[in-house]
Amino acid sequence: MNQDIYIGILGAHSCDESIAEIAETTGSLIANSSAILVCGGKGGVMEAACRGSRDAGGTTIGILPGNDPEEGNPYLTYRILTGLGEGRNMIIIRSVDAAIAISGSYGTLSEIALCLRAGVPVVSLKSWDIPGMELITDSPEKAVELVIKKAKEKNE
Amino acid sequence: MNQDIYIGILGAHSCDESIAEIAETTGSLIANSSAILVCGGKGGVMEAACRGSRDAGGTTIGILPGNDPEEGNPYLTYRILTGLGEGRNMIIIRSVDAAIAISGSYGTLSEIALCLRAGVPVVSLKSWDIPGMELITDSPEKAVELVIKKAKEKNE
Amino acid sequence: MNQDIYIGILGAHSCDESIAEIAETTGSLIANSSAILVCGGKGGVMEAACRGSRDAGGTTIGILPGNDPEEGNPYLTYRILTGLGEGRNMIIIRSVDAAIAISGSYGTLSEIALCLRAGVPVVSLKSWDIPGMELITDSPEKAVELVIKKAKEKNE
Amino acid sequence: MNQDIYIGILGAHSCDESIAEIAETTGSLIANSSAILVCGGKGGVMEAACRGSRDAGGTTIGILPGNDPEEGNPYLTYRILTGLGEGRNMIIIRSVDAAIAISGSYGTLSEIALCLRAGVPVVSLKSWDIPGMELITDSPEKAVELVIKKAKEKNE
Repeated sequence: MNQDIYIGILGAHSCDESIAEIAETTGSLIANSSAILVCGGKGGVMEAACRGSRDAGGTTIGILPGNDPEEGNPYLTYRILTGLGEGRNMIIIRSVDAAIAISGSYGTLSEIALCLRAGVPVVSLKSWDIPGMELITDSPEKAVELVIKKAKEKNE
Repeated sequence: MNQDIYIGILGAHSCDESIAEIAETTGSLIANSSAILVCGGKGGVMEAACRGSRDAGGTTIGILPGNDPEEGNPYLTYRILTGLGEGRNMIIIRSVDAAIAISGSYGTLSEIALCLRAGVPVVSLKSWDIPGMELITDSPEKAVELVIKKAKEKNE
Repeated sequence: MNQDIYIGILGAHSCDESIAEIAETTGSLIANSSAILVCGGKGGVMEAACRGSRDAGGTTIGILPGNDPEEGNPYLTYRILTGLGEGRNMIIIRSVDAAIAISGSYGTLSEIALCLRAGVPVVSLKSWDIPGMELITDSPEKAVELVIKKAKEKNE
Repeated sequence: MNQDIYIGILGAHSCDESIAEIAETTGSLIANSSAILVCGGKGGVMEAACRGSRDAGGTTIGILPGNDPEEGNPYLTYRILTGLGEGRNMIIIRSVDAAIAISGSYGTLSEIALCLRAGVPVVSLKSWDIPGMELITDSPEKAVELVIKKAKEKNE
């Protein structure tokens, strides 16, 4: 098995411009860390993060809720079609070494809780503040630095 | 289709005695309301609530995470074996008209968030306090009264 | 854990009248054996079998593919909403002690194969003829007699 | 969305040497066609096909049944951890444009049936002979040529 690092991006399928910028920067920093970005594959935070990763030469994998490749955003290197609806979030959490939650509402909260439950380190970047999260920050640089560190520790 | 009401009980598979008493009372009140209790089918809060329901003549359905009927608690009228692990929580939330979260940690938080995401009314009985929950209370009577009211409104 | 027997009915969501009659008789024989009938909860073979069971005083559980209770047939005692699409077939197979496949096409074939893979005894009643199936018959009486015997052996 | 072709390899997690050779050749031909190979990520037919693809410079994605990256074979470019057990087969079928079944037993049969049900073209390479399969052959060259043709037709 190769030793690639998989980082999850958790966030809503629509977001305002300032959150999209943060997500895009986060995606490019993940690519610069040579980590694979895994997300739900749709729009909003997910699309912005994927765009940032791809523009920086990174790889993105979208775990889509439905059966239609067209529902994926244009910045996915690969897409998996699950047909599980929101149940696909469990697969994202199982597949990553650590995750960053960016903004988001109840869907993101459930993903954060699944991470905390499963022992997957999760950083909050302008997102929920739940006891057990690794860091509450508004800096993509700090968030990515910590998430990569946690992912490496988990894989050792 | 019959018009039965399905109420979810969300909570941890182990709990202390005082929480078990609250869960048992809650289960018996659900049975007295002629509602079907749906839960993850295991121990702790789930087992106590099922015991309360069965002792009061109610029906309980356990949506188990694994493949082994033996992992179900002894107070299940029916058990479904999903093999989905924690992914079975999604099926509980999809199957109920409303839910009560009793105490609990990250697993319960993820179930609460899935309810809020899916528009399933959820009452907090000594559990998490997340914006959007129907009621934060320590009274099983108030919790069951409200959850039944919300379930009926949803079914109308 | 109680010692109820769970029997799966595998078949298509539409069928002709002669198959519906066979399914209905099968359902009533399952009820007469005091076994719980589990199926995909929709029309055709599933609906006919559920009608037979309910008319004979039996209990039926429908494991539905979607999120809508209305997609269940009117003869379900209980319904579980999975949101998993065809993936719900895996839950049916995991939840039963043995199964009868009635007629059917590729969906039924995949359920039969899942049974054979999982070691769940499966009887063919005018259905596919795959090596490893317990019996190929056109008699509901023979099919139910054998499926109950196999289910009891499995539970011992 | 990019226009990559995703080809599924369906087969058992153990196999004899002659089947492994066929699977390996099949994998290398898929890579030579610039298609992405998707499989269950484990040993046997899956491992041999992945080895063939990687040696030819191709990309392989393993959709694993469990939660442990170590259960993946060493020839996966990317691995997704589903925790769904055999339920992960549904995700493979949903994610591919067409598939080749190589040898195999009941697990492979259920995957073939899921393909036929979902309208995913499936070629039998020394595997089951079920009405509706695209071709029954013992030639990897013929199998890959047809599966790529069918995948392209499906994507048009």
